[in-house]
Amino acid sequence: MEPVRVNLGPRSYDIRFAGDLGSFADFVRLSVPRAKLALVVADTHTERHATTVRDALESVGLRTGMAVVPSGESSKSLAEFGKLLDALADLPADRQTAVVAVGGGVVGDLAGFAAAAYNRGLPLVMVPTTLLSMVDSSVGGKTGINHAKGKNLIGAFHQPAGVWIDPAFLGTLPDREFRSGLAEVVKYGVIQDAEFFAWQEANAAAILARDLEAVRYLVAKSCRLKADVVEQDEREETGLRAILNYGHTFAHAFETVGGYGAWLHGEAVAAGMVCASRLAEKLGRIPADVTERQVKLLTAFGLPLHPKAEWPIEPMIDVMRRDKKAAAGRLRFVLPTRMGHVELVDGVPEDLVREVLC
Amino acid sequence: MEPVRVNLGPRSYDIRFAGDLGSFADFVRLSVPRAKLALVVADTHTERHATTVRDALESVGLRTGMAVVPSGESSKSLAEFGKLLDALADLPADRQTAVVAVGGGVVGDLAGFAAAAYNRGLPLVMVPTTLLSMVDSSVGGKTGINHAKGKNLIGAFHQPAGVWIDPAFLGTLPDREFRSGLAEVVKYGVIQDAEFFAWQEANAAAILARDLEAVRYLVAKSCRLKADVVEQDEREETGLRAILNYGHTFAHAFETVGGYGAWLHGEAVAAGMVCASRLAEKLGRIPADVTERQVKLLTAFGLPLHPKAEWPIEPMIDVMRRDKKAAAGRLRFVLPTRMGHVELVDGVPEDLVREVLC
Ligand SMILES: NC(=O)c1ccc[n+]([C@@H]2O[C@H](COP(=O)([O-])OP(=O)(O)OC[C@H]3O[C@@H](n4cnc5c(N)ncnc54)[C@H](O)[C@@H]3O)[C@@H](O)[C@H]2O)c1
Ligand SMILES: NC(=O)c1ccc[n+]([C@@H]2O[C@H](COP(=O)([O-])OP(=O)(O)OC[C@H]3O[C@@H](n4cnc5c(N)ncnc54)[C@H](O)[C@@H]3O)[C@@H](O)[C@H]2O)c1
Ligand SMILES: [Zn+2]
Ligand SMILES: [Zn+2]
Repeated sequence: MEPVRVNLGPRSYDIRFAGDLGSFADFVRLSVPRAKLALVVADTHTERHATTVRDALESVGLRTGMAVVPSGESSKSLAEFGKLLDALADLPADRQTAVVAVGGGVVGDLAGFAAAAYNRGLPLVMVPTTLLSMVDSSVGGKTGINHAKGKNLIGAFHQPAGVWIDPAFLGTLPDREFRSGLAEVVKYGVIQDAEFFAWQEANAAAILARDLEAVRYLVAKSCRLKADVVEQDEREETGLRAILNYGHTFAHAFETVGGYGAWLHGEAVAAGMVCASRLAEKLGRIPADVTERQVKLLTAFGLPLHPKAEWPIEPMIDVMRRDKKAAAGRLRFVLPTRMGHVELVDGVPEDLVREVLC
Repeated sequence: MEPVRVNLGPRSYDIRFAGDLGSFADFVRLSVPRAKLALVVADTHTERHATTVRDALESVGLRTGMAVVPSGESSKSLAEFGKLLDALADLPADRQTAVVAVGGGVVGDLAGFAAAAYNRGLPLVMVPTTLLSMVDSSVGGKTGINHAKGKNLIGAFHQPAGVWIDPAFLGTLPDREFRSGLAEVVKYGVIQDAEFFAWQEANAAAILARDLEAVRYLVAKSCRLKADVVEQDEREETGLRAILNYGHTFAHAFETVGGYGAWLHGEAVAAGMVCASRLAEKLGRIPADVTERQVKLLTAFGLPLHPKAEWPIEPMIDVMRRDKKAAAGRLRFVLPTRMGHVELVDGVPEDLVREVLC
């Protein structure tokens, strides 16, 4: 597997895969050549993998510290952020000290923000351990924590110096987490790459069985597709990055009304994509089979297709109206035009949105 | 007075002066054209000026909130940072909401970091009210807070959308604070502009009397000189920005050994410049009169020329050895080569450093 190069001028970096030519040691020397010290950050479920990473860092001659946060979304807090800063100060970190995030999106987002803020920017190495973090959160430079009033409300753009993907780390990942990550993989197919979508249809069984070659291919392909978008809109300024939100306006409403915790993020995204695709049908933008193919693939992946019947519809509409992507209360969605392509559509009538939620 | 343009590509901005053609209202419409909301941040000593600014913002149609932090360095803390984020969330801020910092470097650094982090970047307007913040901290995009283990250890580069300088706000500034700010002004002359240094010598009395034209000229000139450096090294990557640290390696040692609070920052910088200049003499880099002119001007400004006799020398040397600018324990200083020009000098013998401290 070739490394995936993310081209961002002076902030360019490689996503490398374990098992290819070149070891973790080479990766570290290439991506953070001047680091003598590293703070490895993990959560309680990834501590074991972090120890492996830590040993590998020490074998290349780095001195390391380790910080373990409780697993779960609530660690993306100002309090845990402060503790990581304390851990860096205790090392003590210098300007070349690497922050090495070993975990899912929670660890990556939190440790990434600490790396962004300490000394106004330390080199960050991402070692994602969930499928979601391998295909999504480790790529693109968004870091941050939550605020009582909003998810990911506090943070920074801080591109990693390198991303190391070892699919072996997925060995301990619960099945539901793995399937949830697949929703974002399906998304890349729908928004950017019809061939990749077809590949997933043809290889659904191998993917679910976590066949190593299938997983490596789908992770690399997903990283490449996300990188293509990020390269054109690094800081969410041109609007292009919005296509990554396919299914997410609905998902956000499901997560809010269902309560965080009812569904994993990918589960909400799966049902959100089906709703968005149905909406595109109602607007006459796509034929029914574009939706049907998504329904089939998501079903194969064991993902939900519809919000739970007990969730009330009006509060969901309210959330969508307040969505950051909604301009002045008019509903706005990323909708498919054909398999492999989406567009931002403004001023969608609320009635149609209600219909796809029913 | 022409506005001072800071050229940083898409992050360019103007520093504008009250009393010129164009009002504060015009400035706000130009610098944050899409803002409908603003959070005005002040400390207990600048609250009055902040109220003036707030009224002006409301008269242009912005809805405002106000957050007042205790005056003093201890407000540059994670706790106050968290409170500002809460205040922004309570507004609630959207992506266009402006953060307007009305105060000295403490308010600017703290509010600037909150603006950088909230939503990964809100537009920031600086309204400096101390001489130091007018000539130094409001220009350049460094924001941040302190950590028990180090000053300004946590932060972000976040360029303001605009800087508004109203010398009338200096009316309430204590004399000692005003004179302390002058140390940085003297610094710009020594490191970048011999003519500006000579102008200060010729106008010392008018400056100390806070003659309005003299103050406007010296603030604008200082902003221009700092902007020249920042434009060439926005994120402290090329090393050029290091020249701004003239006198600061010594100053940092004085502040640490004397205890923060014994001296104001500019007082430490004044004595630090004299030490650095004497060091350059001892190294045969400049004739004695370059130092003597600084001594005379700083004396006229009522600033100290020498560390206090009771401060022990070895701890000061220790601090300098640990300085971020010191490479591998070898002492490194920014030293004059002639009036208006400095160089980074590496591997300075400790004995000479001891001599200039005695
Ligand atoms: N920065 C971005 O661009 C971006 C993009 C998408 C999502 N996110 C963020 O990512 C987070 C979600 O990421 P996630 O789904 O990886 O969640 P997560 O980090 O909470 O991981 C999910 C669960 O799996 C556990 N886990 C992780 N790796 C494991 C492994 N190898 N074996 C066993 N257990 C393991 C974790 O401890 C956790 O309990 C959210 O906070 C979201 O906001 C960020
Ligand atoms: N970001 C940068 O590039 C940069 C550069 C230099 C210094 N700094 C930071 O700036 C801070 C020092 O700035 P400062 O000297 O302005 O300190 P400050 O903000 O603490 O102000 C000094 C004192 O004057 C008071 N004050 C401010 N304006 C007043 C006014 N108009 N009338 C009456 N009182 C007033 C303040 O309340 C405070 O008591 C330090 O934290 C330093 O680290 C930052
Ligand atoms: Zn997502
Ligand atoms: Zn200074």
